[in-house]
Amino acid sequence: MTNEDTIVALATASGNGAIAVIRLSGVDAVAIAESCFKSVVSNKQLSKQDSHTIHLGHIIEGKRVFDEVLVSIFKNPKSYTGEDVVEISCHGSLYIQQEIIQLCLRKGCRMANAGEFTLRAFLNGKLDLSQAEAVADLIASDSEASHQVAMQQMRGGFSSEISKLREELLNFASLIELELDFAEEDVEFADRSQFKDLVERIIFVLKRLIDSFAIGNVIKNGIPVAIVGEPNVGKSTLLNALLNEERAIVSEIAGTTRDTIEDEISIGGIGFRFIDTAGIRETKDVVESIGIKKTFEKISQAQVVMFLVSSVQLTANEQAVQTVVIELEKVKNKFPQKQLLVVLNKIDQIEQVESLRITALLEPHASTLIPISAKTGAGVEQLTNALLNLINTGALRNNETIVTNSRHYDALLKAFEEILNVKQGLEMEISGDLMAIDIRQALYHFGEITGEITNDDLLGNIFANFCIGK
Amino acid sequence: MTNEDTIVALATASGNGAIAVIRLSGVDAVAIAESCFKSVVSNKQLSKQDSHTIHLGHIIEGKRVFDEVLVSIFKNPKSYTGEDVVEISCHGSLYIQQEIIQLCLRKGCRMANAGEFTLRAFLNGKLDLSQAEAVADLIASDSEASHQVAMQQMRGGFSSEISKLREELLNFASLIELELDFAEEDVEFADRSQFKDLVERIIFVLKRLIDSFAIGNVIKNGIPVAIVGEPNVGKSTLLNALLNEERAIVSEIAGTTRDTIEDEISIGGIGFRFIDTAGIRETKDVVESIGIKKTFEKISQAQVVMFLVSSVQLTANEQAVQTVVIELEKVKNKFPQKQLLVVLNKIDQIEQVESLRITALLEPHASTLIPISAKTGAGVEQLTNALLNLINTGALRNNETIVTNSRHYDALLKAFEEILNVKQGLEMEISGDLMAIDIRQALYHFGEITGEITNDDLLGNIFANFCIGK
Repeated sequence: MTNEDTIVALATASGNGAIAVIRLSGVDAVAIAESCFKSVVSNKQLSKQDSHTIHLGHIIEGKRVFDEVLVSIFKNPKSYTGEDVVEISCHGSLYIQQEIIQLCLRKGCRMANAGEFTLRAFLNGKLDLSQAEAVADLIASDSEASHQVAMQQMRGGFSSEISKLREELLNFASLIELELDFAEEDVEFADRSQFKDLVERIIFVLKRLIDSFAIGNVIKNGIPVAIVGEPNVGKSTLLNALLNEERAIVSEIAGTTRDTIEDEISIGGIGFRFIDTAGIRETKDVVESIGIKKTFEKISQAQVVMFLVSSVQLTANEQAVQTVVIELEKVKNKFPQKQLLVVLNKIDQIEQVESLRITALLEPHASTLIPISAKTGAGVEQLTNALLNLINTGALRNNETIVTNSRHYDALLKAFEEILNVKQGLEMEISGDLMAIDIRQALYHFGEITGEITNDDLLGNIFANFCIGK
Repeated sequence: MTNEDTIVALATASGNGAIAVIRLSGVDAVAIAESCFKSVVSNKQLSKQDSHTIHLGHIIEGKRVFDEVLVSIFKNPKSYTGEDVVEISCHGSLYIQQEIIQLCLRKGCRMANAGEFTLRAFLNGKLDLSQAEAVADLIASDSEASHQVAMQQMRGGFSSEISKLREELLNFASLIELELDFAEEDVEFADRSQFKDLVERIIFVLKRLIDSFAIGNVIKNGIPVAIVGEPNVGKSTLLNALLNEERAIVSEIAGTTRDTIEDEISIGGIGFRFIDTAGIRETKDVVESIGIKKTFEKISQAQVVMFLVSSVQLTANEQAVQTVVIELEKVKNKFPQKQLLVVLNKIDQIEQVESLRITALLEPHASTLIPISAKTGAGVEQLTNALLNLINTGALRNNETIVTNSRHYDALLKAFEEILNVKQGLEMEISGDLMAIDIRQALYHFGEITGEITNDDLLGNIFANFCIGK
């Protein structure tokens, strides 16, 4: 990976839109754009234009005209990457996008790797590492909570807290190391009681940040909820009611939902990933059997199991309630850790007394039972409330810094461990040289978060998770 | 619909990308953007900035920060719509896009209707009507041919040809109408033999444009090809080989492809829409039966039927060849107009002599028969060539103006009819006042194409087919 190259990629979402933006970054970005751009103003040269200006013209190669475009110019260091950047805003046809990108490649660009624009921004000092990571989180954010956390991190809220602690700690480390130079004279440059206070403060902050990861993880990834139920109990209708759109195949023929359909909706600012499954009904059909195996796989990935039953089916057949109880116990035994939410659907189609009777029979086998009608919408709000109650969103409401990144979490855990060693060392009054080692270790892990300490493997791993074009 | 409003919409493709662009147009565009933008440069006001400049800052509302963005300013009339335009380039999260658009709505924008940006461009004289229509075609273009045709039309190639003819015709109409004022004096301002030449020339051009619609329609919409075949003959594998991506569910279990999967690929610059069907095997399964009904529906919409058979199945069972012949005849009888392309798949798994024997048995029942192996790729190129041979692309290669729009086609047909009347009138030496009526009618239809003659209903119909944001 070298910064000598000029890279190109589509920056906007793939697909047809009114416009699409193709982004170039690197030393030759302006020259390459100029070589395939003809301004509507005659003799206008892109290389002679000011930074942050926009120019109308055509993308051409010889006699061939690719598109009428707007070209935006950003000159280093005043750009996203800190290099020269050109953005070509073209008509949003997939075909045009591909043709222009291929033209740029012919003119000397290289296709950008995933996250390479942001990597360059980091390498050029435009962002620290946790801010760079927040860019990916921001793009992936799909709820108020995940957006708020990513935005806070991108604006440096998290890394400035870490950087401040790191600086204070670095100060003490220097003083203690200075003492080592004067070892014979037995001086103490570093005030031990002040240092003890700092260590206590660091432990307190680290503990809060580490604890915040539990909610951070939920905010970032959403809560996976597997919807399990017999065919024809209204799984797809419920999914549609929850998603408020027709994503699942709704059919009167039992067993038509063969593929799982995943979608995420935001409830109260928290993302829930609903996973539609084919149910766990015993069957001889090969495709259905594959479906049941898949259902168990999906449940194992979910945090909550939403077991959907049809009150109509349970009323019609006394045996049916018993079958459901057996199935519920099967899920409970197989997945004792998962929260089991039983949803009694189609209550609009049965008598209330009957609904109460079935509820009483099933309730002992569920964590929570909620009667609803997916069709009329009755009870759907209670259901979403029940889902929200499954998690604790206190930290979010208090606008605290929340750790969402597992790499940061790991580094914080390691820093915490080292700082506990430092604390223990202070209490045992160990020698400065030994203490300095623990402090340096803690500093190292702080540096890992903000990117002051880094290496190619780490950067490769981080930016590989970005999309191409960012 | 009024131009007093300021409209807003997402201009880039929907979905997550690195960035997304939100576009505002109208008198208050800059003021609205300014009301929710805080520049990184303190006290910078958007309303005081030059046209075609870009500004870094944050989208804010009170204390809430929505995103770090780039704002581009285009001042009327130097913008796409001819009005003041602001483009907000934000991080490409769906959540952020929605939040910023909603903020703009709160600040006084109205959600743009489909095609409203381009409609305003037309109303403000930035584009003529056929150019405006070409914008939508350009965005939808997914092959070299459709792109070339749309680009030519957007740059005015088509409308300038029509406008030139219209002007010449208008000239003669004026002269003939002038004669009417001097009716008693029996003068001839309009040279009848020159006029006859012009009418012949117009007839020639109109005929060529009208004829070009057959190829234009194919270029614009692609050729629909229904893929029909028994389960397990390799339909999905062939589709994947053709699409070069895993869009269909490939499974060893017969009958798993329950839903039709459509996709378009460009072969030799022409788009082909492949339509995967569930086959026409007789069955008692309810879902499968629905599938067969759907298959016939899909065939009826297709121009070409690609009947796929497995040479392995046909080798294993002598009865099988007969069944295929019966099915082929069934399709031929039901759809005598459709081209029937039989594809003999899996030839890598049988002896060549056997492949020749089966080919001989099936060939009489097909328009074309091609042996392939979707798995190894053998014969796939011959297949795509056979598909290309189904259409005549001469006009495209000669770079002639091609009519792709059915509205233009209708107007051209009507103009052609009127101009034939004019020609007949000339031959019969009818009076100037009668001829003037026919000429005015022809002129009307020419004007319909370029938008010189228009009305609200027509505009409504045209721009309703645009996407929102364009």
